Amino acid sequence: MLGLDPDPAKLWPDALAQAPADGPPAHRAAAAVRVHCAALIDAAGPACAAVKPQLACFERLGADGWAALAATVSHARAAGLLVIADAKRGDVSVTAAAYAQALVGVTPTPFGDVAGLGADAFTANPLLGIDSLQPLVDGARAAHAGVFVLVRTSNPGAADIEDLALAADGGALWERLAQIVAQLGDGGPPGRCGLDDVGAVVGATGPEHVARMRELMPRAVFLLPGIGAQGGRVENLAPAFAPGRAGGLVSASRSIAAAHESGGGSPASAARGEAERLRTAAWSLS
Amino acid sequence: MLGLDPDPAKLWPDALAQAPADGPPAHRAAAAVRVHCAALIDAAGPACAAVKPQLACFERLGADGWAALAATVSHARAAGLLVIADAKRGDVSVTAAAYAQALVGVTPTPFGDVAGLGADAFTANPLLGIDSLQPLVDGARAAHAGVFVLVRTSNPGAADIEDLALAADGGALWERLAQIVAQLGDGGPPGRCGLDDVGAVVGATGPEHVARMRELMPRAVFLLPGIGAQGGRVENLAPAFAPGRAGGLVSASRSIAAAHESGGGSPASAARGEAERLRTAAWSLS
Repeated sequence: MLGLDPDPAKLWPDALAQAPADGPPAHRAAAAVRVHCAALIDAAGPACAAVKPQLACFERLGADGWAALAATVSHARAAGLLVIADAKRGDVSVTAAAYAQALVGVTPTPFGDVAGLGADAFTANPLLGIDSLQPLVDGARAAHAGVFVLVRTSNPGAADIEDLALAADGGALWERLAQIVAQLGDGGPPGRCGLDDVGAVVGATGPEHVARMRELMPRAVFLLPGIGAQGGRVENLAPAFAPGRAGGLVSASRSIAAAHESGGGSPASAARGEAERLRTAAWSLS
Repeated sequence: MLGLDPDPAKLWPDALAQAPADGPPAHRAAAAVRVHCAALIDAAGPACAAVKPQLACFERLGADGWAALAATVSHARAAGLLVIADAKRGDVSVTAAAYAQALVGVTPTPFGDVAGLGADAFTANPLLGIDSLQPLVDGARAAHAGVFVLVRTSNPGAADIEDLALAADGGALWERLAQIVAQLGDGGPPGRCGLDDVGAVVGATGPEHVARMRELMPRAVFLLPGIGAQGGRVENLAPAFAPGRAGGLVSASRSIAAAHESGGGSPASAARGEAERLRTAAWSLS
């Protein structure tokens, strides 16, 4: 899976060159971000099953950035890729329902329905509990989309909260989160390949956890970030693929978009090469 | 504090009437949302210290919605109100820094700096740990803005995760979150009124927690949602105001915007009356 985390200060030169010659900085930068993401999708997409745009990177360019995000989602879908909006949203129920409308659903208005981003799935934060997740899952289900719930993230700070041992059984908080994911997935329709429509974000930097995750969530698709720039290694992830190739989505962002910086060549050809290398590594496990 | 959670299906009639007569539904609905929020700010703002726009409600209208959000932030600031972007963001460090740019900071681009929303503070989700919060706090500090970290939310599901007892000392997870908030606030500059620039979201539906929260976070500003429609009562919140009137921000959204539905009168005059009633109730405690 191709992560799209565009930094306006690190776009491919061709994308910068295609931005409008004048206008407000947000408008020009968003145009360049849009071209950069389309070029990255065209280059690395054929080696990927999905793209994962990081919403923060677009939101920082305001309304122009949101328009670039919507264009990027459309471009990826037209290329036959799934789109997972990396939003990490979580809120009380009425607001959670609004986030589902924004990312995968439709909002009724007196002027007609307004379609959201049109993603195929999005990431969600479970801190606020089951009644905050259920409207996200319900909204996704109504749109035939999926949700990936944060269970154990790939950053060192995950140890601060997600790894805390609970008094009830001595298990870690992330094990409780994994149970909730499995429970939410049980409520859904049976999926293809025997997989649920509620998945889990499982940081690839903690490979010792992956087997236990699979035990707790036998039918969840695992979204596995942290490969490449964050230090994870795809070779450690075999348990994720226990239900088959569709059981794990390995994500890489900066290692693909910036492959030319270490390996040389044009940005596009280096990105394609790195994406193909990661695909081969992931499929050798499954 | 005035919560702004605009639902395009429940806008004030005058706002609907001022929307453009044609154009895409998202554009027309976003225009109506903008007028609705401005009218609500003009009516209830004089009884409030701050507004709290709920980002989900704007994002569901796409780029037009984000533009309406930016206009609403500008309108509130021009009216002399503080703006707290209710975003509940949380992500790994690079992404967290991008969220801070989007909400309170500035993004450097080859075309010039792009200013973010220009909020005075935003809400943050701590699940990913201290290294996910620090870039939010650093980004806010650089912009002379603040962060409100979720500690114990106002929804019933908060019991699922936030109330879990920890093995280490039998305390609740939210008590550990409160300690982190206090620790992050200790790293900042001394604030006016002896208050820190890192605050806490403390659900007003759990008044039995408020005194313990104040003990753990003596210098944090408490953002207290859950008044009105969510069932909380302002009269239960006295401990929040122990450091003085600035120690607590009581938030109400639907009970103000929809006050005319139960009490009659014009939407604007009913909203003003309800906001003034809540202000009097909150100040009687402090």
